[in-house]
Amino acid sequence: MLPQAAQRLDVRRVLWPDEVRVRVERLNLDAASFRQLERKHGGDGAAIRAEVLEIVAARGKMQNPETGSGGMLVGTVEEVGESSPLGLAAGDRIATLVSLTLTPLVIEDGLARWDGTSEQVPCDGYAVLFGRSIAAVLPDDLAPELSLAVMDVCGAPALTARVVKQYDAPTVAVIGGAGKSGSLSLAAARDAGAGRVVGVVPHQAEAALLDAADLADAVVIADARDPIALRDAVAATGGSADVTIVCVDVSGCEGGAILTTAEGGTVVFFSMATSFPAAALGAEGLAADVTMLVGNGYVPGHAAYALELLRGHDGVRRLFEGRL
Amino acid sequence: MLPQAAQRLDVRRVLWPDEVRVRVERLNLDAASFRQLERKHGGDGAAIRAEVLEIVAARGKMQNPETGSGGMLVGTVEEVGESSPLGLAAGDRIATLVSLTLTPLVIEDGLARWDGTSEQVPCDGYAVLFGRSIAAVLPDDLAPELSLAVMDVCGAPALTARVVKQYDAPTVAVIGGAGKSGSLSLAAARDAGAGRVVGVVPHQAEAALLDAADLADAVVIADARDPIALRDAVAATGGSADVTIVCVDVSGCEGGAILTTAEGGTVVFFSMATSFPAAALGAEGLAADVTMLVGNGYVPGHAAYALELLRGHDGVRRLFEGRL
Repeated sequence: MLPQAAQRLDVRRVLWPDEVRVRVERLNLDAASFRQLERKHGGDGAAIRAEVLEIVAARGKMQNPETGSGGMLVGTVEEVGESSPLGLAAGDRIATLVSLTLTPLVIEDGLARWDGTSEQVPCDGYAVLFGRSIAAVLPDDLAPELSLAVMDVCGAPALTARVVKQYDAPTVAVIGGAGKSGSLSLAAARDAGAGRVVGVVPHQAEAALLDAADLADAVVIADARDPIALRDAVAATGGSADVTIVCVDVSGCEGGAILTTAEGGTVVFFSMATSFPAAALGAEGLAADVTMLVGNGYVPGHAAYALELLRGHDGVRRLFEGRL
Repeated sequence: MLPQAAQRLDVRRVLWPDEVRVRVERLNLDAASFRQLERKHGGDGAAIRAEVLEIVAARGKMQNPETGSGGMLVGTVEEVGESSPLGLAAGDRIATLVSLTLTPLVIEDGLARWDGTSEQVPCDGYAVLFGRSIAAVLPDDLAPELSLAVMDVCGAPALTARVVKQYDAPTVAVIGGAGKSGSLSLAAARDAGAGRVVGVVPHQAEAALLDAADLADAVVIADARDPIALRDAVAATGGSADVTIVCVDVSGCEGGAILTTAEGGTVVFFSMATSFPAAALGAEGLAADVTMLVGNGYVPGHAAYALELLRGHDGVRRLFEGRL
């Protein structure tokens, strides 16, 4: 088994030569995972905290058994194995860019400083990074919470930019455009040469936020789970999308994303709520000649690129700061 | 709701102007769906038949609630709505190339001629095709069972060819190379300019079949659910794959497929057993810069291309005939 698929990880403190041990300072739970816990416990912070402690104790990692997702962490390098390829030194303040679902983790403070009501979890304990892993040293010019929130979703803008560059001034629709991965993806789409950028949001409050951020040529309100409504809302802004980026953590958006996308276009699914059969059979059932990508969270240089987008776009920065 | 996502479809005989009604002759159940039913009922054909009848009566379509998948059908066009865009005429003998999961279906003979022990289901009843649908007239030179089996998986070779052409003489690994979509994908990879083609099979019997079919430069035996074993087996044939095609209907193959693929390579998942989060988080967790495609079953011209591959490759034809 690879660590992500394993039920339980070995959490020994002692390192293999290519490993790194990190003193954990803060966990950042994956949004889909946190929301599932919130729903399950009706927002009862103490119960949410107890379940996170229970999961980590049982599995040796923070992987929500319902959503399958994890999150990331911030900490300080404690010890570096002699043949670690990660280029880190003891004392470096870092964020891990691989998922908590495959990171051995021991919580030592019972999460006493966390009230269970936010994805950002102050934490004392340790984690182990493998040789084939990714960690980024936190930049000096940004608050660590801000850097962490950006790095958590940094795969989305990097892959968005790569896909947008395969087209000539394409129309790009970002579903969930006012969210973290969504706002960065909008900025990345423009940066990579999109001709027209459309942000889709679920209601008026998010539309106002995204309008103010000045990241999209058009902002439309639509329920992404309603395929016809989504297609029509995007088409009304000037035609269907060549590239559609799905950044909302709700299930049932596959058909709408496919219908919204022009023949020969590409849909990138970043939501962990995406159903593989719904996407595959949905496109076939609609006779839709679209390329559908599983949103790989790793693209070389993704963290630096996302931080650069945040620094260069006040609108992105305001949206992120508003969500911290 | 789009028809694929709907719990139940309207099965009225009367057509909308853009619809076509087909007199059904045979259903071809999706392999993953049939295997699930077989396992569930311990191979008891009568129980399998009863459950298929029950599903179709309850849902108005053949969509296995466990696997989410359907299959396809063969029949004769009974009536064509006046504005149908499908180009069909009453009396045409056709196969539907969209999934049964979104095709309104009424079974009228209680499946009396089916013993429940094969995916090929003789059936009398009717089905309705929508305007945005695909159906292919069955060719005269091939047995209908053979054409149907080919058309059932014809999205795989077409998309394989498209991806292979994006590389320069790439190495292509097909996991499940001796199966129906696998053997067609191997033939398509060569046809599209692959430099080296590797077929991966689970055991000696399939290795012998695939060797005899002469579709691959190397045939290796590996358990696709064991990531390290799979990677090493493919690498031992001359290096990792630039393009990896996953054609086996077992879960847990995502990590192995990713590890088997070189940086900058592409994995195409055709298996309905693929887990979206396992693929997305697996690639991120391995810091693997690979493109991952959801295997869209529709590519323009896919049926004609797959039939042409079958006609041109005796090895493909023998494998298919052996599985009818």
